[in-house]
Amino acid sequence: MALSSSLTMYKASMIVPNRAAVSTAKFRGQGIMCSLSTLISHNLLLSKSVSADLKRSNFFPNEEQLFGKNGICCHALETEKAFGTAEKAIEFSKGNKFQLDDILDAQQFDRDILTAIFQVAHDMEGIEKNSPGSQILKGYLMATLFYEPSTRTRLSFESAMKRLGGEVLTTENAREFSSAAKGETLEDTIRTIEGYSDIIVIRHFESGAARRAASTAGIPVINAGDGPGQHPSQALLDVYTIGREIGQLDGIKVGLVGDLANGRTVRSLAYLLSKYKNVKLYFVSPDVVRMKDDIKDYLTSKGVEWEETADLMEVASECDVVYQTRIQKERFGERIDLYEQARGKYIVDKNVLAVMQKHAVVMHPLPRLDEITVDVDSDPRAAYFRQAKNGLYIRMALLKLLLVGW
Amino acid sequence: MALSSSLTMYKASMIVPNRAAVSTAKFRGQGIMCSLSTLISHNLLLSKSVSADLKRSNFFPNEEQLFGKNGICCHALETEKAFGTAEKAIEFSKGNKFQLDDILDAQQFDRDILTAIFQVAHDMEGIEKNSPGSQILKGYLMATLFYEPSTRTRLSFESAMKRLGGEVLTTENAREFSSAAKGETLEDTIRTIEGYSDIIVIRHFESGAARRAASTAGIPVINAGDGPGQHPSQALLDVYTIGREIGQLDGIKVGLVGDLANGRTVRSLAYLLSKYKNVKLYFVSPDVVRMKDDIKDYLTSKGVEWEETADLMEVASECDVVYQTRIQKERFGERIDLYEQARGKYIVDKNVLAVMQKHAVVMHPLPRLDEITVDVDSDPRAAYFRQAKNGLYIRMALLKLLLVGW
Amino acid sequence: MALSSSLTMYKASMIVPNRAAVSTAKFRGQGIMCSLSTLISHNLLLSKSVSADLKRSNFFPNEEQLFGKNGICCHALETEKAFGTAEKAIEFSKGNKFQLDDILDAQQFDRDILTAIFQVAHDMEGIEKNSPGSQILKGYLMATLFYEPSTRTRLSFESAMKRLGGEVLTTENAREFSSAAKGETLEDTIRTIEGYSDIIVIRHFESGAARRAASTAGIPVINAGDGPGQHPSQALLDVYTIGREIGQLDGIKVGLVGDLANGRTVRSLAYLLSKYKNVKLYFVSPDVVRMKDDIKDYLTSKGVEWEETADLMEVASECDVVYQTRIQKERFGERIDLYEQARGKYIVDKNVLAVMQKHAVVMHPLPRLDEITVDVDSDPRAAYFRQAKNGLYIRMALLKLLLVGW
Repeated sequence: MALSSSLTMYKASMIVPNRAAVSTAKFRGQGIMCSLSTLISHNLLLSKSVSADLKRSNFFPNEEQLFGKNGICCHALETEKAFGTAEKAIEFSKGNKFQLDDILDAQQFDRDILTAIFQVAHDMEGIEKNSPGSQILKGYLMATLFYEPSTRTRLSFESAMKRLGGEVLTTENAREFSSAAKGETLEDTIRTIEGYSDIIVIRHFESGAARRAASTAGIPVINAGDGPGQHPSQALLDVYTIGREIGQLDGIKVGLVGDLANGRTVRSLAYLLSKYKNVKLYFVSPDVVRMKDDIKDYLTSKGVEWEETADLMEVASECDVVYQTRIQKERFGERIDLYEQARGKYIVDKNVLAVMQKHAVVMHPLPRLDEITVDVDSDPRAAYFRQAKNGLYIRMALLKLLLVGW
Repeated sequence: MALSSSLTMYKASMIVPNRAAVSTAKFRGQGIMCSLSTLISHNLLLSKSVSADLKRSNFFPNEEQLFGKNGICCHALETEKAFGTAEKAIEFSKGNKFQLDDILDAQQFDRDILTAIFQVAHDMEGIEKNSPGSQILKGYLMATLFYEPSTRTRLSFESAMKRLGGEVLTTENAREFSSAAKGETLEDTIRTIEGYSDIIVIRHFESGAARRAASTAGIPVINAGDGPGQHPSQALLDVYTIGREIGQLDGIKVGLVGDLANGRTVRSLAYLLSKYKNVKLYFVSPDVVRMKDDIKDYLTSKGVEWEETADLMEVASECDVVYQTRIQKERFGERIDLYEQARGKYIVDKNVLAVMQKHAVVMHPLPRLDEITVDVDSDPRAAYFRQAKNGLYIRMALLKLLLVGW
Repeated sequence: MALSSSLTMYKASMIVPNRAAVSTAKFRGQGIMCSLSTLISHNLLLSKSVSADLKRSNFFPNEEQLFGKNGICCHALETEKAFGTAEKAIEFSKGNKFQLDDILDAQQFDRDILTAIFQVAHDMEGIEKNSPGSQILKGYLMATLFYEPSTRTRLSFESAMKRLGGEVLTTENAREFSSAAKGETLEDTIRTIEGYSDIIVIRHFESGAARRAASTAGIPVINAGDGPGQHPSQALLDVYTIGREIGQLDGIKVGLVGDLANGRTVRSLAYLLSKYKNVKLYFVSPDVVRMKDDIKDYLTSKGVEWEETADLMEVASECDVVYQTRIQKERFGERIDLYEQARGKYIVDKNVLAVMQKHAVVMHPLPRLDEITVDVDSDPRAAYFRQAKNGLYIRMALLKLLLVGW
């Protein structure tokens, strides 16, 4: 779908607080007043079944519905601690469901939407086999249209769809649509595929391809990576993992390590972390692949503190998160000596673990080569396989949000 | 399955009309009398649920069942206008369900079967997510056995199966079965696959492969294209689209444009249109790729009027349907000049649209290159993406008919 | 999972027979007494619904439950005749379900486990579309992780999963995970995939890969062939087919024909047949590809009679099973003359059929070239396509056992 949003934002302060809101604020243990609308929107984000209850009760829930039987208050407290509170209320009006249209790039998310997506992802973690929640996408068909193979990403999306009861049409052979002999445009392919499915997950070798697909399609499109461009579900799962592992996003210190010039992962992560308060970023990389100025300038403009350094050990001892990435040999051209030197210098091993704080974690977008040694795997602070698993929950959340709304 | 049919045909005039038939004829607004059998068979084709009702009432429906609650009469009128009335009644006897065995080539369909398939396809358009109709193939397993990739066709069949609640085993790698090292015959492969599935959709590079598969298999086989041979579901969706777009098949004028010598699509379409009354065909093509004599002779023998011309504009102004196809460069050998000339001459663009009638449509089997310009897409008469979507309904109908009957 | 088993074995004679056991023995028509535990374990193996009944009745079934309504007694008789009786009782304790962890090689099965698997496979044959049995794996997700294509094996596993209501994530492109550019280890890939699925079916080009996968994964792993190594589900289906076709496994005579040196199929089969009593094996092969000494020595150590011969006709007239395999040209190096001679000598054709006993059968792991002539196919003793179909039931049984237990 074309990028547009039915989100209507307004200041919470514009709403007259009422009895329910007051009691709510009390239960939430926060010193500020918040409106019923805020509350409802938050609770709606947390639980589809409560959402149904609220609709039935015509938007005037009693306290038992909100706090009594469902234990939602605690849930809200927990997820808000990890992912932050939306600063503005998200309006929910009956019939006009809050609806994301497409997932195309990291820039489309503000803090409210991030919070909302993470809360849905957190709900997804609790869905059990053959429970009603596992069937919310029953009858829906997702097409995975991959113009280049990416088995990891494809299986993650397909698992997400099937875990919610949906079905999948799959091709890793999408180039065949536009083979030399045939020469069909991406737009024509999308018009055909949208006739067969309810949502398209596209992986393409050209930057911008997902946006072209979305502007053609009458159904939602998710960008599963378009060349050197964007891979927004990876960016979301990275931020979600930090929230899940550290318990908060405001006030965290994150060291980004490795190839910071070319990795779309670390660039998107830096961008998204700027949405949170008092974040500090450390850039640890060989000179050849330093973080580019566009991101640094953006962070500065947003008041995000950042620091460039070559000292992995010091950063490791300071940070909540050491986010390691792969350094690609080809970036160094003929200076193989510089490459070998860089690799050796930035490996996360037992020595790095030894200086890290007890609550801190090591992350990695995977696949890894030897930039994290295998003996790190058994340390509870090795979060990279949990991170991969979180990709499943984020993708479940995105599919749910795009297909059936909150 | 071997090609055989349990269809028993007989003349409607052999049936003594009764009260129900008389009132039926009145409701249908047709000047002719028609038998109860005709009626029942038609209504059975329209709706599985009515079919069940009729079976329960032992073939003596009351008027309410036929015309009252279900609004079937209007439905029947509409589909009959578009697809024609079967000239002979199709006998339906309890327990012996009308059953297609395999779908192998366009030649296996007569007008009655076409009408019946199109009526089922039309019903398929109305099936909603999670409705009982969306589960009629639950528990059935389709194997898509593709010896060459054809993502468009494969996804269309797989979507059709899943839209009806069925499941899919898929391979685009079927040549691996008979790789040089292994050398298994197609027949042996089919005997293995039929043990794993309930229906086989086969795409093969050799003409006649689907028929060989069908004569081996104890389960239904659908030909999804065998080399230069047949692609019957494409032929069916073309005729179905004309019926849906123009509202009738008798009396239509169709211009076939482009490579008429090699395109199995246009050849099959010409063949199937000969089943209808007062059809006129125009063949518009470069000399090198003119429609071959076998089809022309067949049309003449059936009393179908046809005309060969080079004037696309005149044909476009006369026709109900402009059916455009791709002209392949390699057909012109070294005469690239002739190829370029031919392409330029037979492009459907805004100028062609300007002379076409308001009710007429442009069709194309897809993929297209530049033989239809992109600015045509937004015109409501551009029917090619609706045509692709109709492929889904036709394939749903075929799967339903082959697996569970009417 | 790491190889371990919660099976507890104990001698049946250690159990004091009670009333139910006595009446049971009578109904089973066996002259020996057998314990309630034996009985329960056997019946549990036969039927999940009975198992549920037994659990409800707190392990003291009445006779009607065991013999009355379900016709289980006959079933037990039949399967015991074909597959042998477990010599030791398998303990079933409530809550601690008998559980296989992984399926890695033929050596992990003893006679009791074989009997149990075959009984479950036999139950699988009776599962009908949309019956409760067809949904026992609903909500489970199987990942088919194929590092080399094997369409036959993949479709067999995927059909098995879907016939039981489960879902599938599929890749024939698993090498892409560990492509040169990426270099991910198998262990890392497994840690990612286990986050997306409930069971992994792996096909790999390296011997031992499945065992490495299993020792990493926290979910069950099935080896679907690892290079020159093992392919245990093929071995199981071969033994199961002999039991189903001949009606017994004790006392059978099997001729293994063709390439006995390199075929993992015949090697595993010889190994597994040594679990049964009074088995006699004939090895019929060209000199170049004779059965290796390790298997011969093993058979001798187990008291299994075997004989090496070049006379296919004599063996065919003696045996219950002629198990034919493909002779690969490349095994003969430059001695093409020897290859041609060997092939001609060991073809199963009408002449071989003519000397075979009426109850005997021809088997083949497929694909076949011309080592069995096509005119053999129509003889009822040609069991190879039934054998392929049995692969489905064996794989259904393995998936059920690994995912939900008995």
